[in-house]
Amino acid sequence: MKSNGGKSFEVDGVIEFIKNIETPVNAVFTQYCETSTAVLHPVAELGHALKAHDPNIYYVVDGVSCIGAVDVDLTRDDIDVLVSGSQKALMLPPGIAFVAYNDRALERFKSVKTPRFYLDLAKHHNALEKHSTPFTPNVSTFRGVIEFQKMISEEGFDNVIRRHSTIRDAVCAALKKLDLPLLVEDQYASPTVTAFVPKDEAEVKHIKSQLESQFNITIAGGQGHLKGKILRVGHMGFISPFDLLPFIAGLEMILTKYRNQSYIGIATQAFLEVVHNEI
Amino acid sequence: MKSNGGKSFEVDGVIEFIKNIETPVNAVFTQYCETSTAVLHPVAELGHALKAHDPNIYYVVDGVSCIGAVDVDLTRDDIDVLVSGSQKALMLPPGIAFVAYNDRALERFKSVKTPRFYLDLAKHHNALEKHSTPFTPNVSTFRGVIEFQKMISEEGFDNVIRRHSTIRDAVCAALKKLDLPLLVEDQYASPTVTAFVPKDEAEVKHIKSQLESQFNITIAGGQGHLKGKILRVGHMGFISPFDLLPFIAGLEMILTKYRNQSYIGIATQAFLEVVHNEI
Repeated sequence: MKSNGGKSFEVDGVIEFIKNIETPVNAVFTQYCETSTAVLHPVAELGHALKAHDPNIYYVVDGVSCIGAVDVDLTRDDIDVLVSGSQKALMLPPGIAFVAYNDRALERFKSVKTPRFYLDLAKHHNALEKHSTPFTPNVSTFRGVIEFQKMISEEGFDNVIRRHSTIRDAVCAALKKLDLPLLVEDQYASPTVTAFVPKDEAEVKHIKSQLESQFNITIAGGQGHLKGKILRVGHMGFISPFDLLPFIAGLEMILTKYRNQSYIGIATQAFLEVVHNEI
Repeated sequence: MKSNGGKSFEVDGVIEFIKNIETPVNAVFTQYCETSTAVLHPVAELGHALKAHDPNIYYVVDGVSCIGAVDVDLTRDDIDVLVSGSQKALMLPPGIAFVAYNDRALERFKSVKTPRFYLDLAKHHNALEKHSTPFTPNVSTFRGVIEFQKMISEEGFDNVIRRHSTIRDAVCAALKKLDLPLLVEDQYASPTVTAFVPKDEAEVKHIKSQLESQFNITIAGGQGHLKGKILRVGHMGFISPFDLLPFIAGLEMILTKYRNQSYIGIATQAFLEVVHNEI
């Protein structure tokens, strides 16, 4: 099933697609946040629609680039398995994957017969019941998880979610003032990463290289058919709105010179207005 | 194939065993250091014997608890695949597995069709050729590997190996003076972990609990049929001979009181004599 870069999947379209598949559908997998395009998918809506269509389907959500910055609830959102990693909005070094699942999914893990060793979730579950792990775990990052949990408790998880969406809104407002259109329509824009579309490939290269050489700021390019067409800025985890100011101010200076048109102070003002209103 | 706890496998016995299996043998797996018994196996001798018997067999060695403290060479020792981890003699936190392999093994990885995703060594090899990894790597421990490499270069790898075997010899000499027999005959004793046999289960428990409560020293018990019968002390990685002195001195004090027989200074002297002679 193909989808448009910059748009989320259409829930009705996914259900229609599944109905037209001739072999039985056991599981549906999706990204929660599609990092390559900065799209946030409506995973809860798809969860409800899938269960209404066929309650036996397993619904597996890859939340690697947004868990920690979005409001998700397995039961409420009809998700059977939710996956994440330590290195994104959980603010830790890479090295741990997280899996949350319901009892129905656990029964399925236990019945699977395909060969596997390390990633045998039934084995991990059995060890978990004894407060252990089946193999030597990544102890240092485990300790980081405890620290993450303390930080989130202090800030309040609702505030964490609000902080991420405020930064997203502020970045989007600033990019529009810089005549840098967003790849993603506002309603699908991820709270953890924003993609924007410079004029042409030369401008893409210029912005990326000047951010790095002048301001020591690294942002990502596009992947696949979006390579050379878009740029992506991450804004998740251990980050405050003010941490994005150097990026916006850097863009103002780079584009003022490159396009010979003054942007100085315009995008940062738009950015700060959003932050001031939303926080 | 069963082997005696406390002894290494017998190379001739392994070859005989393989000859008597009716189905074709594609691969032979062994631990290099069997951590549960503190035995170091003669992996090079088995490598030579396996290749002499059938050069098509793949020889896979698990070196998790000794790589970094032993002299190993894939070509010289006829090993096809050698595995290790970051958290033992490589002195790093857990979180990275290491795999060394030859071209023949690589060809085999590429031809395997069983389902796998993360641990697809062919995929990892392709990424390696581009100086990359197929998935987000454990960056913090990667940086530790670079630091480990610097430390080993400074000390000299031959000295690292000698340091480990000196500690092993000194620990063994001290334990004998404490009337604590070794589980493993000297010729099979691992340079990274030593197992010893207290008088009975009560003494095992007493030694372990007193080391912890009086001296804050943690050592390991036995596994499987050796549970309650042996104790194991690790001595690998970022460690000098003197780091073992508190363990030996603590044992002297615990046993002097428990057995009502004076060991004070006797085991530490034996320990230091070995260190003095070998370093």
